[in-house]
Amino acid sequence: MHDQATTIAELRALVQRFVDERDWRQFHTAKNLAMSIAIEAAELMEHFQWLDQQASQAIAQQEVKKAVVAEELADVLSYVLAISSALEIDLASSLEAKMVKNALKYPADQIRGRYGHDDERAS
Amino acid sequence: MHDQATTIAELRALVQRFVDERDWRQFHTAKNLAMSIAIEAAELMEHFQWLDQQASQAIAQQEVKKAVVAEELADVLSYVLAISSALEIDLASSLEAKMVKNALKYPADQIRGRYGHDDERAS
Amino acid sequence: MHDQATTIAELRALVQRFVDERDWRQFHTAKNLAMSIAIEAAELMEHFQWLDQQASQAIAQQEVKKAVVAEELADVLSYVLAISSALEIDLASSLEAKMVKNALKYPADQIRGRYGHDDERAS
Amino acid sequence: MHDQATTIAELRALVQRFVDERDWRQFHTAKNLAMSIAIEAAELMEHFQWLDQQASQAIAQQEVKKAVVAEELADVLSYVLAISSALEIDLASSLEAKMVKNALKYPADQIRGRYGHDDERAS
Repeated sequence: MHDQATTIAELRALVQRFVDERDWRQFHTAKNLAMSIAIEAAELMEHFQWLDQQASQAIAQQEVKKAVVAEELADVLSYVLAISSALEIDLASSLEAKMVKNALKYPADQIRGRYGHDDERAS
Repeated sequence: MHDQATTIAELRALVQRFVDERDWRQFHTAKNLAMSIAIEAAELMEHFQWLDQQASQAIAQQEVKKAVVAEELADVLSYVLAISSALEIDLASSLEAKMVKNALKYPADQIRGRYGHDDERAS
Repeated sequence: MHDQATTIAELRALVQRFVDERDWRQFHTAKNLAMSIAIEAAELMEHFQWLDQQASQAIAQQEVKKAVVAEELADVLSYVLAISSALEIDLASSLEAKMVKNALKYPADQIRGRYGHDDERAS
Repeated sequence: MHDQATTIAELRALVQRFVDERDWRQFHTAKNLAMSIAIEAAELMEHFQWLDQQASQAIAQQEVKKAVVAEELADVLSYVLAISSALEIDLASSLEAKMVKNALKYPADQIRGRYGHDDERAS
């Protein structure tokens, strides 16, 4: 499987087959899966905990470390897919709709090079 | 866009176009993006904070609430895609590899119906 | 040390001595410490990930499990104390002020027995 | 209330009085409170999301921003205190015990100036 050729639905089916073979759907409530995403996100974050920005970005060129990070990221994604199954949410259309909304909130010509509106965040 | 027909690469391109139009790549270090996934995961979790399992799952049938949750989930996914761009990680192959590893760790015939090995977690 | 007799300042001093003996203040920026609180919070949460409400609460009577949870909670608290040192925030007066604000937001006579206002959260 | 003169038990009593006046103990299971700590930790983290280390630390000198951060930190602490009530955990003795354990794991003379052992973390 590769990102160029794999659909969201195929990835979701991969996760659901794993869950069903273990009869784990009973544990996969939306509440538990939302917690699981947050737990895996924190495990991902742990790899960057004491690094400055540059060192964190340098991981792109460190094969061993990058493989560990890729595994943590896969864990996050697996639960994103699982909760989309549990709640019957279409991820692609949800993301597309949210990006349209974001584009209205952050017009490119007003916001270029700054992160967020001045009254929202420190820059 | 729909999950059946949309590839991971297409979703990632959607997010990257948004980021590039705002010149935000400078903020998209792995450290910041890992934090962002965790922040959005917590916003998703907030919708289930005081609900019991059943009530959390009932959201699948509540159109308004489900749309709000779908939007939060899209935020999580957008940062998963952004960090995969920043670190040049292929999500589909990473997930596939992780599921193989998980299958070895949790053999279906030994683990069916229980969550995790007895020495790992409370059941 | 016991909660009845230990001040916040004494606990903070305990953490700072540990940090200073290792020359770790250089890593203890507010950004890193906020990440650290979130990471430790997720490790705490992991113990409750697949439990229902009742099973999670039953840990109060399970000595071994409770000791593990207490250790995770101590980790969260240690970073709460560390960031209060790094940013020179007085925790007791901050908490007292926030509880006054919360009391105005959630008047006891209007909110008793319900979690949050109707328009804020699912009940 | 000030950190120099306020005990953990006094802060916990402040939170519990607030909870009891609203009859909220029914929602305060260990699972829900662990989620709540993680949610508030993420809200704290949000203030540092796009800042580099130095800018995050500069908040110590920015009165308005610092007050907002203090409020978020108070939210985290309020749930740390609430879960310690719900599970009957003594925070001071738990923290003291954990710091002893940490001191054995990270001997000051071996670890000074480096964060974690080499095989544990990127430095």
